[in-house]
Amino acid sequence: MARVVQKFGGSSVADAESIKRVARRIVATRNDGHEVCVVISAMGDTTDDLLDLAKQISPNPPGRELDMLLTAGERMSAALLAMAIHDQGATAVSYTGSQAGVITTAAHGNARIIDITPGRIEKSLTQGDIVIVAGFQGVAQDTKDVTTLGRGASDTTAVALAAALGAAYCEIYTDVDGVFTADPRLVPSARRIPHICYEEMLELAANGAKVLHLRCVEYARREHVPVHVRSSFSDQPGTWVADVTEEPGGTMEAALITGVAHDLSEAKITVVGVPDQVGKAARVFNALGEADINIDMIVQNASVSDATTAITFTLPDADRPTAIEALRAIQAEIGFQDIIYNDQIGKVSVIGVGMRSHPGVTARFFTALAEAGVNIGMIATSEIRISVVVDEADVPAAVRAAHTAFGLDSESGEAVVYAGTGR
Amino acid sequence: MARVVQKFGGSSVADAESIKRVARRIVATRNDGHEVCVVISAMGDTTDDLLDLAKQISPNPPGRELDMLLTAGERMSAALLAMAIHDQGATAVSYTGSQAGVITTAAHGNARIIDITPGRIEKSLTQGDIVIVAGFQGVAQDTKDVTTLGRGASDTTAVALAAALGAAYCEIYTDVDGVFTADPRLVPSARRIPHICYEEMLELAANGAKVLHLRCVEYARREHVPVHVRSSFSDQPGTWVADVTEEPGGTMEAALITGVAHDLSEAKITVVGVPDQVGKAARVFNALGEADINIDMIVQNASVSDATTAITFTLPDADRPTAIEALRAIQAEIGFQDIIYNDQIGKVSVIGVGMRSHPGVTARFFTALAEAGVNIGMIATSEIRISVVVDEADVPAAVRAAHTAFGLDSESGEAVVYAGTGR
Repeated sequence: MARVVQKFGGSSVADAESIKRVARRIVATRNDGHEVCVVISAMGDTTDDLLDLAKQISPNPPGRELDMLLTAGERMSAALLAMAIHDQGATAVSYTGSQAGVITTAAHGNARIIDITPGRIEKSLTQGDIVIVAGFQGVAQDTKDVTTLGRGASDTTAVALAAALGAAYCEIYTDVDGVFTADPRLVPSARRIPHICYEEMLELAANGAKVLHLRCVEYARREHVPVHVRSSFSDQPGTWVADVTEEPGGTMEAALITGVAHDLSEAKITVVGVPDQVGKAARVFNALGEADINIDMIVQNASVSDATTAITFTLPDADRPTAIEALRAIQAEIGFQDIIYNDQIGKVSVIGVGMRSHPGVTARFFTALAEAGVNIGMIATSEIRISVVVDEADVPAAVRAAHTAFGLDSESGEAVVYAGTGR
Repeated sequence: MARVVQKFGGSSVADAESIKRVARRIVATRNDGHEVCVVISAMGDTTDDLLDLAKQISPNPPGRELDMLLTAGERMSAALLAMAIHDQGATAVSYTGSQAGVITTAAHGNARIIDITPGRIEKSLTQGDIVIVAGFQGVAQDTKDVTTLGRGASDTTAVALAAALGAAYCEIYTDVDGVFTADPRLVPSARRIPHICYEEMLELAANGAKVLHLRCVEYARREHVPVHVRSSFSDQPGTWVADVTEEPGGTMEAALITGVAHDLSEAKITVVGVPDQVGKAARVFNALGEADINIDMIVQNASVSDATTAITFTLPDADRPTAIEALRAIQAEIGFQDIIYNDQIGKVSVIGVGMRSHPGVTARFFTALAEAGVNIGMIATSEIRISVVVDEADVPAAVRAAHTAFGLDSESGEAVVYAGTGR
């Protein structure tokens, strides 16, 4: 018997029938002798529908009230799921984030979990109840107001509760079969990754893989919570995200690259004709930082002819208008010539802890791209990742070329036992 | 400047436009210099929709979870209303019943308010915020679980808060213009009652007037909270429900009857051939009490021929199947012959504190019914009320006859200054 946390997303509880199906799975886990704590998202499109309603009322609603509104979504799905479990003969109690002891900062809409005080959950689990917790929400430590953790943060709630409850593991049920070596829609030969370490999963999540949220993986790594990402529509095993463990046969050593991720959500901005003087670049990025713009990759090219430089950076395309506005505001002060942008770009990343000990990964990656006729725009690397920016139209060819070059195709049967990207 | 509590029902906040309209009215009150605490119901049909969803999940959901589900409705409307107020330049904060300090019993679905601890509301009002409280809900004193107070109990929340906050009065905004001398759909000449005392309002609410809930009026009487029932669609004054005060001109003395109420929701059950022995009738009503059936009127007729009696009583028609089941279960034990019922009945009541000091009201009422050709089935009286049961088809004629007989028609211009029934 173990204590486990299970998390089900909105698509798993979109209507009454799917809520009953999820309830059956939970009750089966309970009947296997486990203590079960479930984290639940809002049903289907509920959160979007509530946001639409708020926009009809006010173009800029206060964050406190928006959180009060949105948290109704998980409250409803949690209560309905508890009813469905009761209807199948087990006992269940639903708790809001506040009742569950999810203590957060007061940053409405994007609060961070400070602490979990799971006294009520512990009591319910001990007396044999299945506990259902509304995900995505908590209560602010200082103001006692209801908060939300940001979109998709129910995964984070689940991992945080697993850590606080000392659960053996956290299961994240989703609508895909696990984490894959590349997006199966781009690469039909992509394979499910049975095991992946936190660091690789972090890089995948940060570079376009959508199956797990970055904050969830960060939390799991920090608290050493094993996470099992799996399909809510089958009983097949999915992907285990956990600390690196040396496996029999030493297969991990053989894996150069674990997966290929891609991201189409970024844009590229170039500030042209920046006077090549100390402090000008810093001023540019200060202005962007003050506007809360998250910069990803940066390249600076000096011009030999006119003592100016061009500063190029990538950022979420959604932030582009704000960034350009912030730059225009300092154009006269800095004295640059122009701003140009390109939103038809994509980032392709190869990720794997194996590259730490194996030279030649960059060469193999770039050769594969060249052979596929893909031109490289920008380059960035971390210890376990190489990312390139390419034309958006070239992204599928680039991902497929990298996937093949590193022996990830399922037909190859080569050394790589685990590797991957989410979809 | 006064402190006031305003309550708006679900039909007043059915969509984004009506929420904005309500917000304008609230902000106007605030701009008049008042401290404003608002109690809000769920939008339109939200509560019914949530109940439907619960029924799709489980035929008999646990009360705790049903309360968790249903309370989402007021949470959403409260947050949206706060947003609408912000959008109009005032500041507002929404509170759930629990946050507002509405402490209740743990009787899920029908909890009673035990206490109000309005610390957070007081603080918000003092710093100039408009406070929006989710009606119909609270938190159980012992279990800390979320509770609901029963359908329509937002009125009660409002009156209870008005008492706890020491408000000058409580305004109940609704979709009618106030309390009327009779249902205007039956009696076109019915008039709005400008003032009515708690006792009369209690009798009206208990006997079919739907404009205010019984528990709300009971609470208002006990705590001496003046209640102003008025339309959310106009600025016209409605009906003040308050302690009796002797008005200039002594018009109250002149009022024999304040209003005529009617109720079509009851049924009549007759237990036939009950052995005329000590304890048999008690056994019948014990069985009904154990089945949680609220009995209204009772008549027992002894038969001279065979030493049996017939026991006839009225009850909510919705409880009829349960009542008949409970009676069938004791039929052999008691030895009665049969159960017959009639759901095509109606109750018509004339109500007024004036009848305490004026004899002849019964005679005038029954004469009016006789002249209208209405046959009387059962009769019940209180100190300030006379009720009769008649055929359902006769109810309109009976109500109109009584309304005219006691000088309540608006054309009459007679002595009666205040009088009435809700519709």
